[in-house]
Amino acid sequence: MSARILVVDDIPANVRVLEAKLLAEYFDVLTAESGEQALSLAQNENPDLILLDVMMPGLDGFETCRQLKNDARTRHIPVIMVTALDAREERLRGLEVGADDFLTKPVDDVTLFARVRSLVRLKGVMDELRNRDHGHQVGRDIAAGVDWAAHAVIIASSAKRGERYASALPAFVTYEVESDAGAAFAAVEDGADFALVDLSSPDFDGLRVCARIRASAKVRELPLIAAVNSDDVAMAVRALELGVNDFVHRPIDSEELTVRVKTQLRRKHFADQLRESIDERLELAVTDALTGLSNRAFIGARLKHFIDSANSGGAPVSVMLIDIDHFKRVNDTHGHEVGDGVLQAFSRRIQRSLRALDHAGRWGGEEFVVVMPGAGLAEAETAAQRLREAISGREVVLDDLVLPITASFGVAQVNPGEDMASLLRRADMALYEAKSEGRNRVEAAASAAA
Amino acid sequence: MSARILVVDDIPANVRVLEAKLLAEYFDVLTAESGEQALSLAQNENPDLILLDVMMPGLDGFETCRQLKNDARTRHIPVIMVTALDAREERLRGLEVGADDFLTKPVDDVTLFARVRSLVRLKGVMDELRNRDHGHQVGRDIAAGVDWAAHAVIIASSAKRGERYASALPAFVTYEVESDAGAAFAAVEDGADFALVDLSSPDFDGLRVCARIRASAKVRELPLIAAVNSDDVAMAVRALELGVNDFVHRPIDSEELTVRVKTQLRRKHFADQLRESIDERLELAVTDALTGLSNRAFIGARLKHFIDSANSGGAPVSVMLIDIDHFKRVNDTHGHEVGDGVLQAFSRRIQRSLRALDHAGRWGGEEFVVVMPGAGLAEAETAAQRLREAISGREVVLDDLVLPITASFGVAQVNPGEDMASLLRRADMALYEAKSEGRNRVEAAASAAA
Repeated sequence: MSARILVVDDIPANVRVLEAKLLAEYFDVLTAESGEQALSLAQNENPDLILLDVMMPGLDGFETCRQLKNDARTRHIPVIMVTALDAREERLRGLEVGADDFLTKPVDDVTLFARVRSLVRLKGVMDELRNRDHGHQVGRDIAAGVDWAAHAVIIASSAKRGERYASALPAFVTYEVESDAGAAFAAVEDGADFALVDLSSPDFDGLRVCARIRASAKVRELPLIAAVNSDDVAMAVRALELGVNDFVHRPIDSEELTVRVKTQLRRKHFADQLRESIDERLELAVTDALTGLSNRAFIGARLKHFIDSANSGGAPVSVMLIDIDHFKRVNDTHGHEVGDGVLQAFSRRIQRSLRALDHAGRWGGEEFVVVMPGAGLAEAETAAQRLREAISGREVVLDDLVLPITASFGVAQVNPGEDMASLLRRADMALYEAKSEGRNRVEAAASAAA
Repeated sequence: MSARILVVDDIPANVRVLEAKLLAEYFDVLTAESGEQALSLAQNENPDLILLDVMMPGLDGFETCRQLKNDARTRHIPVIMVTALDAREERLRGLEVGADDFLTKPVDDVTLFARVRSLVRLKGVMDELRNRDHGHQVGRDIAAGVDWAAHAVIIASSAKRGERYASALPAFVTYEVESDAGAAFAAVEDGADFALVDLSSPDFDGLRVCARIRASAKVRELPLIAAVNSDDVAMAVRALELGVNDFVHRPIDSEELTVRVKTQLRRKHFADQLRESIDERLELAVTDALTGLSNRAFIGARLKHFIDSANSGGAPVSVMLIDIDHFKRVNDTHGHEVGDGVLQAFSRRIQRSLRALDHAGRWGGEEFVVVMPGAGLAEAETAAQRLREAISGREVVLDDLVLPITASFGVAQVNPGEDMASLLRRADMALYEAKSEGRNRVEAAASAAA
């Protein structure tokens, strides 16, 4: 998969070397010669990844990375820091300011491209969600603070080896050690914030466990950190290709493991929050806040769908309009809060009486609608009678108040070629008839369009 | 990236050969020995891809594929049909029933895995959207009918070559031919339903154009079909790796190109509809249906966000509560429709008077709220006075009715450490004061919490 990569280095020759390598792999390349220019391009040019030199005059790589990761507009762009120095302190500092990886020049091409592809792939998936933003600031309000407390599953060839890995984990992580592939997978499914997988033991196929996790719809998103021998580049590359998020070299540097764990927890935090934020809004969009039933827009769309389907030769569909009798009196006598309580109790009774296929919604005020796919008029009428009895047969009790509640029903089945407005008009006329015939009644619309 | 692959073949030896190959590449493998079993596993086990044998007793591969693609629960799973016969008619038939590719046994491993990875990657991105469903049937109602009318950009080394490709396109496709990479990219950005790219010409780097399209946030999703020489397996694999969706061999079989174009248009149709469906619901979730302003839930969340930010040392935030004066009279005198018209006109005036950073919402009934991030009390008061004048200075005109409308305003700035409920209470008390002092007024809350 191609991607747009921003290369940042104050020395033009370094830029050209990386640019040439990336172009040969068919990446699209942007270049910047300073941290300031990098920030501006990151905000305006949608790069998918940033290769960032550490030592630059003005804004250096650390500060540039820190600013990129503190800005909601650029936080999602992966950053790989590149340096001429192989100093541990530098690497830790880079990872601490939020870099996704830290590579040393001259950069090993195989590792670089495996890492780039892995980060770009992850970003592509999250972009689909981020793109749903469209100015609604989905994800913009995500709290920057991450709760580091986390649970890890350590997957190693033996309990003893696993405990050695555990001793390198930061104190904020609780853990369990698994040395059997099946048990490890079960532990992950039981709930974990990340897994640390040993890929350095010849007698244990840790990659297989990683692959199984990535192939499972349920735990596919789990952050995976692999431990590999420092000379085993091939294993590190294979792990990245299979979807491992990050790796550490053995023997394990506890401080480096800690910052890499934090990077993964931070990434997971933002991804989870973004999904939740979208899910909540999708839920909000289809739900009536007071009753929890579908709202008018959503139930209308459902009804239209089933009418279209019936009109294209599919199953019939019937609709039930329900209006609570003398609801205004409840409101006037007992106040709005009691009125709301009645609407909620009423909605629960509707919900309980539905068949599995039926959809109930609040149409507005004290009016409700039930869409019954597959139901003919007689069936709908029977269902309405049953619901009418369930409602009139038992009072609504709110604190000290005992309120006898009844409702009137109009049912109609869609006629061939009939549209939604016409169907609802007929159901509404039947409902009107039920009201004028004395309420607490069900009336069915004749099949000829009125 | 690993994935769960369902292998379907009635001959156990064939299953075992494919299973072994896939396991060696660290895929998770499910197996089925009949079409019926395949349908059931596809519905219940979330495979990411299906390798489907053509010749089976009972439900054969064609019918199994047709049923998979006609079921909303399984339609999104890519299918590769595998056959022992290299017959053109078979291949066309497989593609016509919705298979994403059709490979001949013995299957070339490199091509197989490149194809599998490409299909799995595409699916992964769409799954992120599909997973937002959670029972809301997002995407379930997507019309199965695809409008085939489409516009293609044909990208080839010369206009003449491009026209030869065009002659193989179905009649429902309009096209333009581009032989310059920059012009081709511009044409794609201008709007196309797919691109057909020649990768068979030694003097034209079509891959570069494909890569550039895939690296562009704007046109990344465009379906790309590549034309490659039939003996150039390496090029086909490279193209799939770079994100090309499908390829056809030269010389081009017009009928095969047509079914492959249809497959891509169908995939695009579903992806576009799914995105639109989610986007519409996200919009619905935050919008007040009558006025188009933010709804109470959303504006409340925005306000809370800015209060939290102010309380963590960020910029101040002020809030403006607005209530239309004597609105009940409008409703009682002229009816609800006129009342709604006034609310709409009123909302437009609020919207026009906002600063770029402000957020306006309908709080309920005839009450509105404006959240003003960065604004102190004095600034908020000035803005409220300006809005008050804009409203009282010009009547609302609805058809023949000329309605003089005024509103009362309460403004308040958040105190250090104050929560949303307290801020709104102070703003509401200021609003009450404005009402009791004669309406069409702005009152500001004192900074000490009441």
